[in-house]
Amino acid sequence: MKLYTYFRSSAAYRVRIALNLKGIPYTPVFVHLTRGGGEQHAAAYRALNPAGLVPALELDDGTVITQSLAIMAYLDEAYPSPSLYPDDMMARAKVRNFAAIIVSDIHPLNNLRVLRYLKRELHQEQPAIDAWYRHWIAEGLPALEAMLTDHGPFCFGAEPTLADVCLVPQLANARRYECPLDAFPRLRRAEAACHALPAFQAAAPERQPDAE
Amino acid sequence: MKLYTYFRSSAAYRVRIALNLKGIPYTPVFVHLTRGGGEQHAAAYRALNPAGLVPALELDDGTVITQSLAIMAYLDEAYPSPSLYPDDMMARAKVRNFAAIIVSDIHPLNNLRVLRYLKRELHQEQPAIDAWYRHWIAEGLPALEAMLTDHGPFCFGAEPTLADVCLVPQLANARRYECPLDAFPRLRRAEAACHALPAFQAAAPERQPDAE
Repeated sequence: MKLYTYFRSSAAYRVRIALNLKGIPYTPVFVHLTRGGGEQHAAAYRALNPAGLVPALELDDGTVITQSLAIMAYLDEAYPSPSLYPDDMMARAKVRNFAAIIVSDIHPLNNLRVLRYLKRELHQEQPAIDAWYRHWIAEGLPALEAMLTDHGPFCFGAEPTLADVCLVPQLANARRYECPLDAFPRLRRAEAACHALPAFQAAAPERQPDAE
Repeated sequence: MKLYTYFRSSAAYRVRIALNLKGIPYTPVFVHLTRGGGEQHAAAYRALNPAGLVPALELDDGTVITQSLAIMAYLDEAYPSPSLYPDDMMARAKVRNFAAIIVSDIHPLNNLRVLRYLKRELHQEQPAIDAWYRHWIAEGLPALEAMLTDHGPFCFGAEPTLADVCLVPQLANARRYECPLDAFPRLRRAEAACHALPAFQAAAPERQPDAE
């Protein structure tokens, strides 16, 4: 299978982690989101993914799945072991809840296309754009921290789940924008546990062949 | 169970539809998002949902699940019939993909808290805010339309799925902001099929006891 990816896309970063955790081999196809106005807007890529966003997963039969959560739900069904979800139904609900806060409440507001709209259409200067970026992270992280307990080391216990897969790229963004993380010891505990795993290490933006 | 809801919240609207489709009785608890600065910010509600957003589902044992997609995934596991997902794995992937475009790419940008930030922090006037709202809908709907075929009447066949559950509230928002929908005949076909079902009708914003 092929993963259309960009090293700095945190949605692609999630899928890279999930593929690594499951040990699924894939061919990365690099889509540069800023070069030449954005390769994601090229006709060939739009034919593959009309939304013009990464990631996109192309299966060997040509089927394309987009949206990181949908891709990871598919991967978990097609390659069940190790699962990204806990066995217990209520624990699964918590994991999905946690992941959705990142994927629906924080990340969409800090996406490249949104920052560009703020700059180009709303004529915002960089400090206002940076404040926007940090604002949505500062809004979202307390809700995530409140969901975790002291039972680690990962977000929800002894094994990494979809929650950790979504958390690590989001905290990478927070660090890149120098958001204060002192108030989130449980999130940092889970992040540290993930960073010790080769599956997470190999998925990191700076380890990708297209990293700049 | 209790659903913390606001008539105009399209995320709550999704969950109302899902509960109705499954015939699950629930007690609505109304959280007024604009009155008195927003009841979702009150300490009592923040204790229930630290993110300060609706919907939240409170089970009889006190467990709280937030985020519409996580709530609906839980409901589908706890109350499997009728399912919100197709039986076929690849069809499920398509349904989740479609729903995620709405839940992650369109709706988060048009949420009340975001529109407020544009107004209060970025000092945008109403026409610029309305243009923002319509922009993200205009960006997202073509990708949704491209995913559907002529095999209806619902988004993905003869039965409503999670895709329809997410589509109907999003199109209601599009209509409220007078977004042109002529280019999306398949989306409108699915919407019309949904509007004929009592489960969708009873979940509509204007049918809620807290509607204004």
